Amino acid sequence: MDTKKLLGDEAAKYVEDNMIVGLGSGTTVNHLVRALGERIKEGLQIKAVSSSEKTCKLAKEVGIPLIDINMVEQIDLTIDGANEIERNTLFAIKGGGGSLLYEKIMTLHSKEVIWIVDEEKIVHQLGKFRLPVEVIPYGCHKLFRMFFEKQYKPVLRKNKDGLFVTDSGHWIIDLHLEKIDHPKKLADWLKSLTGVVEHGLFLQCVDRVLVGNNDQIKVFEK
Amino acid sequence: MDTKKLLGDEAAKYVEDNMIVGLGSGTTVNHLVRALGERIKEGLQIKAVSSSEKTCKLAKEVGIPLIDINMVEQIDLTIDGANEIERNTLFAIKGGGGSLLYEKIMTLHSKEVIWIVDEEKIVHQLGKFRLPVEVIPYGCHKLFRMFFEKQYKPVLRKNKDGLFVTDSGHWIIDLHLEKIDHPKKLADWLKSLTGVVEHGLFLQCVDRVLVGNNDQIKVFEK
Repeated sequence: MDTKKLLGDEAAKYVEDNMIVGLGSGTTVNHLVRALGERIKEGLQIKAVSSSEKTCKLAKEVGIPLIDINMVEQIDLTIDGANEIERNTLFAIKGGGGSLLYEKIMTLHSKEVIWIVDEEKIVHQLGKFRLPVEVIPYGCHKLFRMFFEKQYKPVLRKNKDGLFVTDSGHWIIDLHLEKIDHPKKLADWLKSLTGVVEHGLFLQCVDRVLVGNNDQIKVFEK
Repeated sequence: MDTKKLLGDEAAKYVEDNMIVGLGSGTTVNHLVRALGERIKEGLQIKAVSSSEKTCKLAKEVGIPLIDINMVEQIDLTIDGANEIERNTLFAIKGGGGSLLYEKIMTLHSKEVIWIVDEEKIVHQLGKFRLPVEVIPYGCHKLFRMFFEKQYKPVLRKNKDGLFVTDSGHWIIDLHLEKIDHPKKLADWLKSLTGVVEHGLFLQCVDRVLVGNNDQIKVFEK
């Protein structure tokens, strides 16, 4: 069985009637969204908040009722993916798909957060995966130069149409750090920079990680 | 003579040939832009970076050649207004017109910064003027509630067409603090919040303030 589908199906089991559910983004989350669509056909009553236009579109297709995050006091449970998770701390890098900003805001709105990932995403130390930094286009070349001088190997993210633009109209600078020795310090510094909207370091914000390896799922608790 | 026009004319004198000039925003800056337009007709050679769509439009009208901030290594001189300036520290609140984000980025790109203000903007302590906080619309009601609970008297900025939207597509929450005892601490905390893009506290970023009182101009140096 496809591990991503298995993870999506398994995560869907944590969703209960009357919950407000936060839907992350990415291919693994897409399986969750489809599984929730099936459960809704069987009578599950939920409302969901979406973290990206892509997830929003899929959720509508499979019949999940969506609600504006600003209409919600709190999200009961957010389920999302991650690009790299540090085994000991459960610190993560997210944003490979470019939805880090809304995903982080959603996470901070949530009573409980579950991440679903392939085992290959679990690492001893963060940093092999590129660290996305979401920036205001106006003046961002100065940030780029600074990252370059610090040897963070910045790359302005592109896609087939040219520059990658986030759902909020921002750009992403991906940093190639190889290893991150002090994630908290780096996170605070990045967020403090004028022109930086958000970054892909998600620290201390997950309760449970479902880790898939072929047809096996392990659960890591905080 | 109109004090704002006097300030605009006086500030224009600081601009020299071959400078890259940062143009702030607001009614006083509009006088500067017009004065620079006159000097360009007389032969002044400059390029300018604009901090708002409004300033951009006016600069084009009066014949100032504009350049993208991302094409510039450094701005030689930025001239901007302010809503409130603390006399001793030259700390300021800016963003009454809603252009705080680009104004702050421009300021940080600049070798030298001059502010031009009416004397009534000079205060003993910051905080009577509303403090603008530029936020990501997605999930910002949670920030609003938090500011409300802290008794910061938040107001989501509106204009005649509905919600005020910045040039970057963000919203502004204005805080009514009456007095700000620890500007640096407040600035750092606000910027650290997920969903906050920027705020209107401009600390330690001006070199010279031209202060107008009727037909008199005083100069405050850093």
